[in-house]
Amino acid sequence: MDLRDEWNGFVGGHWVDDINVRDFIQRNYTAYDGDDSFLAGPTEATDKLWGKVQELQAQERAKGGVLDCETEVVSGLTAYGPGYIDESMKDLEKVVGLQTDKPLKRAFMPYGGIKMAQQAAENYGYHVNDKFNQIFNEYHKTHNQAVFDAYTPEMRAARHSHIITGLPDTYGRGRIVGDYRRVALYGIDRLIAQKQQDKLNCGDGTMTDDVIRLREEIAEQIRALQGMKAMAEVYGYDISKPATNAHEAFQWLYFGYLAAIKTQNGAAMSVGRISTFLDIYIERDLKAGKITETEAQELVDHMVLKFRMVKFARIPSYNELFSGDPVWATLEVAGLGQDGRHMVTKNDYRFLHTLENMGPSPEPNLTVLYSKRLPKNFRDYAAKISIDTSSIQYENDDVMRPVWGDDYSICCCVSATQTGKEMQFFGARANLAKCLLYAINGGRDAKFKDKKTGLPMQVGPEFAPITSEYLDYDEVMHKFDLMMDWLADLYVNILNLIQYMHDKYYYEAAEMALIDTDVRRTFATGIAGFSHVVDSLSAIKYAKVKCIRDEYGIAGEFETEGDFPRYGNDDDRADEIAVWLLKTFMSKIKKHHTYRNSEPTTSILTITSNVVYGKATAGMPDGRKPFTPFAPGANPAYGAEKNGLLASLNSVAKLPYEYALDGISNTQTINPSALGNDEDQRVTNLVNVMDGYFANGAHHLNVNVFGIEKLKDAMEHPEKPEYANFTIRVSGYAVKFIDLTHEQQLDVIARTCHDRM
Amino acid sequence: MDLRDEWNGFVGGHWVDDINVRDFIQRNYTAYDGDDSFLAGPTEATDKLWGKVQELQAQERAKGGVLDCETEVVSGLTAYGPGYIDESMKDLEKVVGLQTDKPLKRAFMPYGGIKMAQQAAENYGYHVNDKFNQIFNEYHKTHNQAVFDAYTPEMRAARHSHIITGLPDTYGRGRIVGDYRRVALYGIDRLIAQKQQDKLNCGDGTMTDDVIRLREEIAEQIRALQGMKAMAEVYGYDISKPATNAHEAFQWLYFGYLAAIKTQNGAAMSVGRISTFLDIYIERDLKAGKITETEAQELVDHMVLKFRMVKFARIPSYNELFSGDPVWATLEVAGLGQDGRHMVTKNDYRFLHTLENMGPSPEPNLTVLYSKRLPKNFRDYAAKISIDTSSIQYENDDVMRPVWGDDYSICCCVSATQTGKEMQFFGARANLAKCLLYAINGGRDAKFKDKKTGLPMQVGPEFAPITSEYLDYDEVMHKFDLMMDWLADLYVNILNLIQYMHDKYYYEAAEMALIDTDVRRTFATGIAGFSHVVDSLSAIKYAKVKCIRDEYGIAGEFETEGDFPRYGNDDDRADEIAVWLLKTFMSKIKKHHTYRNSEPTTSILTITSNVVYGKATAGMPDGRKPFTPFAPGANPAYGAEKNGLLASLNSVAKLPYEYALDGISNTQTINPSALGNDEDQRVTNLVNVMDGYFANGAHHLNVNVFGIEKLKDAMEHPEKPEYANFTIRVSGYAVKFIDLTHEQQLDVIARTCHDRM
Repeated sequence: MDLRDEWNGFVGGHWVDDINVRDFIQRNYTAYDGDDSFLAGPTEATDKLWGKVQELQAQERAKGGVLDCETEVVSGLTAYGPGYIDESMKDLEKVVGLQTDKPLKRAFMPYGGIKMAQQAAENYGYHVNDKFNQIFNEYHKTHNQAVFDAYTPEMRAARHSHIITGLPDTYGRGRIVGDYRRVALYGIDRLIAQKQQDKLNCGDGTMTDDVIRLREEIAEQIRALQGMKAMAEVYGYDISKPATNAHEAFQWLYFGYLAAIKTQNGAAMSVGRISTFLDIYIERDLKAGKITETEAQELVDHMVLKFRMVKFARIPSYNELFSGDPVWATLEVAGLGQDGRHMVTKNDYRFLHTLENMGPSPEPNLTVLYSKRLPKNFRDYAAKISIDTSSIQYENDDVMRPVWGDDYSICCCVSATQTGKEMQFFGARANLAKCLLYAINGGRDAKFKDKKTGLPMQVGPEFAPITSEYLDYDEVMHKFDLMMDWLADLYVNILNLIQYMHDKYYYEAAEMALIDTDVRRTFATGIAGFSHVVDSLSAIKYAKVKCIRDEYGIAGEFETEGDFPRYGNDDDRADEIAVWLLKTFMSKIKKHHTYRNSEPTTSILTITSNVVYGKATAGMPDGRKPFTPFAPGANPAYGAEKNGLLASLNSVAKLPYEYALDGISNTQTINPSALGNDEDQRVTNLVNVMDGYFANGAHHLNVNVFGIEKLKDAMEHPEKPEYANFTIRVSGYAVKFIDLTHEQQLDVIARTCHDRM
Repeated sequence: MDLRDEWNGFVGGHWVDDINVRDFIQRNYTAYDGDDSFLAGPTEATDKLWGKVQELQAQERAKGGVLDCETEVVSGLTAYGPGYIDESMKDLEKVVGLQTDKPLKRAFMPYGGIKMAQQAAENYGYHVNDKFNQIFNEYHKTHNQAVFDAYTPEMRAARHSHIITGLPDTYGRGRIVGDYRRVALYGIDRLIAQKQQDKLNCGDGTMTDDVIRLREEIAEQIRALQGMKAMAEVYGYDISKPATNAHEAFQWLYFGYLAAIKTQNGAAMSVGRISTFLDIYIERDLKAGKITETEAQELVDHMVLKFRMVKFARIPSYNELFSGDPVWATLEVAGLGQDGRHMVTKNDYRFLHTLENMGPSPEPNLTVLYSKRLPKNFRDYAAKISIDTSSIQYENDDVMRPVWGDDYSICCCVSATQTGKEMQFFGARANLAKCLLYAINGGRDAKFKDKKTGLPMQVGPEFAPITSEYLDYDEVMHKFDLMMDWLADLYVNILNLIQYMHDKYYYEAAEMALIDTDVRRTFATGIAGFSHVVDSLSAIKYAKVKCIRDEYGIAGEFETEGDFPRYGNDDDRADEIAVWLLKTFMSKIKKHHTYRNSEPTTSILTITSNVVYGKATAGMPDGRKPFTPFAPGANPAYGAEKNGLLASLNSVAKLPYEYALDGISNTQTINPSALGNDEDQRVTNLVNVMDGYFANGAHHLNVNVFGIEKLKDAMEHPEKPEYANFTIRVSGYAVKFIDLTHEQQLDVIARTCHDRM
């Protein structure tokens, strides 16, 4: 087992002969128990570059959200020559590479759907060259066209009525995290050799459709790897061989990620678990005296700067769903290894420290893989950064590690995926609140009307509606069960269709090239309207719910008499309904055939789509007004939480992660004063809150520390300099508050801000 | 069951409510028992137009085979405005529509393979616009690229060594016959409505890959139907509704076929069984006094003229395989109905009569569906045309009807397919002669060398070779059995892969739009080198065969001592080996998984590829010299036939059609003098020969009536006017002799010309 020259100083292991980054990390990382005192401030170069980017961001905002938009060139690995933040400062950039030829210029990415790509440009006043009309309509079909070709009328109706929303049928499905570290550790040539070997071993000669498809995919992956080399050459780098030092490791890894964001416009384009890996290179260079801490921080800062600049051209309906231009360049720090060692390195500090060196920012979506077994110093530092910036999220490493191992990445907002070994078929979410209303109304929609008859649209099956004035719990539960059967069936099959077409028309060759050929595939579904269903069922069970029916007999508003237990108060009566709902829906999902025999999972997370979902959904027995936003993710309904932060957290923690392996998102806002009177107290209290919450088996927490007054002021005075980078955590990501739509801002303001623990 | 106005005068039936052309034909056709005396000569318009086409054909030949070649426009239904044979004579054309904007100009068809499309143009001195490089390499992948992406090294080796040749991996697979009659009978709108209905009923909601694929295909079919309407509008016709008279029926039907040849460049692009169908329209118009016989013949002539003009741009290696620019616009006449009535109509005469009105021609590939139950008048007329033109072929309706019903079409040279109910996955052929040599030589090739080692290429499995000087029959049979197992396995899986990619990248939407959605799919394989294997095995069994081994120990020549029975002499000892070989290979093919659960079939036909196959194959124990042509199709080896025509035909007739449902091609040349001293005698004798041959259960016969001297003279003096349209039947099609390569001409001359019965 001879180490290559580039690997001098590393401890060998399985990773030398096999592609095995995890093994490399476990044998080589240096855990760090110290505090943040070693950290270095920004270099002059960092200040200059970040200053320039902020300037561009201000221009972008002034131009209505998009600075520049490609209309002539189809995005691809080598579609452009080199691009820099500022041509005159290009020597300052330690990590080079842009999606296009200019900073913040959005690429033309037609493969997900030519119409959307054209609309996105039009939306910002650009017009895509008309020649692409013929090319991507006549010569080459795009994903979107293919999906709509195959949809059934029932699927279209479900999509139209928003009982299923956010489907990746108009753009990239995203959520596939290439193991970008492989580019640095092995160089492209070794990766190509491995894929060639895999192709030789792909299938036993019997050419079933599955084998043929995979063989072609491997060929596309090899082509993408060759394309990455060519892309790096454009910037003057030869990435055919392993990186020889920290600077190259950062640059090589970033090229891998750049390949992904040049070829795919997935909703989520995560970076993955790169911090500990990169620390190994920095440590080697630090030990050899080849680099200083300031230079190390500069590498981290410059790479993060690039992640802050990732942009895609989107259409208005997309922006409504996912507000504030997020890309989910999710990046993890911390976590523990299977051997019990924590994996906190100095680099984990450095990545969090970027929020201090360059101020708060929504991207990269910084995620702490939390455990109370992490060093106290680190937990304190992370809590301090949360309190200062509201820009990071926490996920429970102790519940994820047993399922995903110790080298998983977060592939979107909160969903785990085994790095380099797994891909996910992303699948948006089903609106269970609407499903409950369909159960009551015999599959008819309270909002959408049939175009021909003008009558309420029959979206679900024509089951007998409930006709009684007051709702009977057993009857509702029975009908809800049947309607969920229908919805789960339809939902899974819509996704089967979308994933098939995505593989066919918009395959993620560059990302899959950095993932094992023998890939595990998960099939992610999701739930929206969770807390409203739980509270509504509780109302029907424990109180008296009267239907208010419209002229067509549709119950779209309810009068609830009497009190009932609500989810979010640590009251088992409500929380048990929540657990039942999750388990029941998941069991219905699991019944069905899934594309490529993928493993079905579900999530309770809504991003900011809770607003759009809510707008399409009538009133509920829990008291939620018609067509108003849902609570996001697994959050309790607005106003339902009466017993303070800890009770709320306890309710959410009861949801079993094993049934929602795609994630359970919880977003909380705490008034600084509720946490304590000074920073030390606040840090201590926040760490205690999280230790307890996660020890209870909870999965995720978005931590916001500010008061509602600040939000209101920012909404009214977005021009104030202090709000330019004012970042908050919403369901599953961070966003600049002033980039949210007015509607989204009002929704955020409406959410519970805990003034007491 | 109300008849639409367009159907006035027709007898109603199932066809009124359902798409069912067969039912329409059976209820409405007028059988004709009379003779050819009713036939009309060419009109002035026909003479002018055919004169112009001949002029263009002469120019084409003078230019080296291609008159004009598109380099700017991708072929498609509406890629061009209207095109005419001659703009100044366009009013003379009773059936309008060209593949491109100019007569004989070859379209640019990149979807089968952009490289081939470019090479084909270059081959004739044209250069395709470079913009298509990016479009069809970067933006859109073509079939050829996809197939090569997925091929295994073993598949590439088998292709390289020509043990499997003629695979449709560089162009359209062809052989799909749309039911073009549907356009005339129903009009496009009704066909769209049916496909929309089919889509609603496609799948039960569970979206398996198969259901998704089919749903998308139906969507593409509907799009193609809409495209056909637009294409017809370019020529000023509205084909949304049924044809109202014979003229429209011819035109509508031709537009259906035009859609196919504008969008696909399959090796075989058959027209199908249209004659009886169109006769119904002519009969109605004749009865109503709306048309004269001269006008009826003119419609037939003008449509045939169009079939004579179909062209595709091909690459040199394709031309070597299928010499003389064939397109297999195969068109059938005669046959019997399931009810026992013969289906000969006046139109069947008219189509054969085109060979008199406009002289001989290779296209359309006129095929008589033969039975001795056909009227004597018709059999005589067909025999007369054969004797005069050597341009038609015969297939045994009595063996095909029980399998395919009474509305099948010939989809290529000889292969039957149920019209409108079936499609075929075309699959070239496996070289069983080479396979026998591999059995003897342990899978090593006698011709091709390994690039690295310079040693004989190991193509087949590394089984132990035969090392004895003299071949032992049992040992050879055992090893041949094993090697055929390997070949059948590999062959089927190559085809699985090709068919998958063809569906994915080059789906025949226009043709499939005119076929039932619930389509039957056959999976056609084929055998090359048939007679040489049979005779070689006979030699090993009945004589003494000595191996002559080269420096590498490869037996590529043989010395056979003593006499042995040969296939083609009505000697059961040899003919039983032939039957065994067919049954054995077919049983091995059937073992395997076939794409889309299609039904495997095989054929013994080689087109002109017998030359290319032979060139790649060393000597055989039957005495065939190394690297010389094979006998074509199921023909006995050259020189093997010693007992005259009838004995030869008897041997071929022993091959059971049930095991070779894709066809058994037999091509015979008879010296006119052998048939008789005057035309009457010749006609009588030829009819007797065919009656007997087909009564024996034979499948197919290509009839050539001329002496070898004529061929030699034509080869030496191609400029003589009498040879301009001199047409001969080769294996599975007709060809202008002077359009064959010199090598092919020599091969044809080498074939047995029977001088006695």
